[in-house]
Amino acid sequence: MLLLNAAEVEQAAPMAALIDAIEAGYREEADGQVVLPPRLNMPNGRDGFFRIMPAVLNRSGLMGYKVFHGSMREGIRYLIALYDQHSGILLALMDAHYLTAARTGATTGVATKFMARNDIETIGVIGSGLEARTNLLGVAAVRKFRRIRVYSTNPQRRERFALNMAHELGIEATATDTPQACVKDVDLAIVATNSTGRAEQIAYRGAWMQPGVHVNAIGSTMPRLREIDPDTFANANLIVGDSLGQMEEESGDVIAAVAENKYPRERLLELKEIVAGRAKGRPNHTSVTLFKSVGTAIQDVLAGHVVYKEALERGLGRQVDDILDPKFF
Amino acid sequence: MLLLNAAEVEQAAPMAALIDAIEAGYREEADGQVVLPPRLNMPNGRDGFFRIMPAVLNRSGLMGYKVFHGSMREGIRYLIALYDQHSGILLALMDAHYLTAARTGATTGVATKFMARNDIETIGVIGSGLEARTNLLGVAAVRKFRRIRVYSTNPQRRERFALNMAHELGIEATATDTPQACVKDVDLAIVATNSTGRAEQIAYRGAWMQPGVHVNAIGSTMPRLREIDPDTFANANLIVGDSLGQMEEESGDVIAAVAENKYPRERLLELKEIVAGRAKGRPNHTSVTLFKSVGTAIQDVLAGHVVYKEALERGLGRQVDDILDPKFF
Repeated sequence: MLLLNAAEVEQAAPMAALIDAIEAGYREEADGQVVLPPRLNMPNGRDGFFRIMPAVLNRSGLMGYKVFHGSMREGIRYLIALYDQHSGILLALMDAHYLTAARTGATTGVATKFMARNDIETIGVIGSGLEARTNLLGVAAVRKFRRIRVYSTNPQRRERFALNMAHELGIEATATDTPQACVKDVDLAIVATNSTGRAEQIAYRGAWMQPGVHVNAIGSTMPRLREIDPDTFANANLIVGDSLGQMEEESGDVIAAVAENKYPRERLLELKEIVAGRAKGRPNHTSVTLFKSVGTAIQDVLAGHVVYKEALERGLGRQVDDILDPKFF
Repeated sequence: MLLLNAAEVEQAAPMAALIDAIEAGYREEADGQVVLPPRLNMPNGRDGFFRIMPAVLNRSGLMGYKVFHGSMREGIRYLIALYDQHSGILLALMDAHYLTAARTGATTGVATKFMARNDIETIGVIGSGLEARTNLLGVAAVRKFRRIRVYSTNPQRRERFALNMAHELGIEATATDTPQACVKDVDLAIVATNSTGRAEQIAYRGAWMQPGVHVNAIGSTMPRLREIDPDTFANANLIVGDSLGQMEEESGDVIAAVAENKYPRERLLELKEIVAGRAKGRPNHTSVTLFKSVGTAIQDVLAGHVVYKEALERGLGRQVDDILDPKFF
């Protein structure tokens, strides 16, 4: 059993490998080889939560779960447990804070590969945290582009994000004073605002969408969290979700769009259908497309497997004796 | 983070402490301090399963889950993860094969304390495996008795069980050739047959119940498993379950009784109501009472906590560095 802490996981999570694994996972899901029950969301004490999301992947021969729990006040801990399906052995336990952001970015990479135009010049990034970075890295793994603009409510954080990403990706990067200026005339937008309760305002509006744009929105993963307005759904020619059922139950953005009758079900698809080639991810050059992600345990288990293999190869983490004996009856 | 293997857990699971903890847990549940979602049962490969059962205990300040998975062919592995609610720290991971049997026995001990007569002389045990032993130990922790009879289909196993339990408990113990002979004129019966698919026949029948008897039945925890017939339910003056909702969904015995219209809902109670003093566990001296258990994560988390404390005190297991960093947003 391999134990990996936060720093080790971050060293063992190459974006290109995460994207390949998650793309293959969507084909596996499309082929009916995945068991993905609704995740369990439990209240925990006065203001905390305890959430468990498992998946079984029959073609990959893997199973596992992510557990994350805590509260804003006490902090949140993320754990991924990875099992080999055939032997039943618990292979690894790892910190999954960074990996949650990285697999979300990788999933955005998969969606972008199938949904965005090929001729991308400018990207608008709303948000300046870890998820904004990993989602931009996901896009950068599948599309070349020349420049980004970034907006977040904190001027220092958006300036720092621009500097860091210009350096990391070798691109032009500027911070803007308003979200409108950030996304004006962009070919692709990433909306990745703080998904933990401080996003008091809508960060992105459908009124700002221009022909040909592709939008990735990943921040609203609980009913009380909001970042894109109902018009963003209404104005899209195609809306793709990583898990439609889960997102209609859990995303405050989707719940609001449904409530305002701005959730056009006839234009909805799941990412697995696009990846499996059963539907086109981009109707035409001028279509407006939206990818909305809430995250699934398939992504977590496959990302955990990438990290496990990479860590073994690089000698990261600590091997401890297996504590689980198989019992025969 | 404390890691405990099978042998260490078995050394750190004293029955009296398990019974006290689980009894307190039922009061906590009765007071509305417990979050217990339906457990997740996933198919796993061709003939296996992957099952996750979590609980949050707000008064105890604990949370955790049991995961068990595998197949008859490949073997089954049981894991309990225990967390401190206030700090959010993952305290321990432990093998939970023995502990599952022990906490089931402890729960039977709690039920027996509130439901069985005080004047117990003879106990009939149907089954000769680990659960038969732990359930008898649970009863022995709350009632004195003089003798047991044991029946199981394998003559060698029932003889060995009788010898071992006579030695362990300092009682008379005899093996019988038929289940009827085993339970004739007993004051209490334990039905704990192989719960993993080889119980082809009904092991106990309601026709054998005599006035004043208390029956504990714990083997049928999946729809395909059977051990007590519908008459056992129909003939009981009081039926108590550890979790009525779960047992109606998961126990083949309950499903069959419902189908044959022999499941008298007006005589059903949950164990928490008895333990909390809201209802009597034994109507009168000659009542026939039945405790049916399928197991809950409350039992697992509290049993894991007993083992954790005992292991710390006795220096059992291996402490490894915590791998989970709390993240603040």
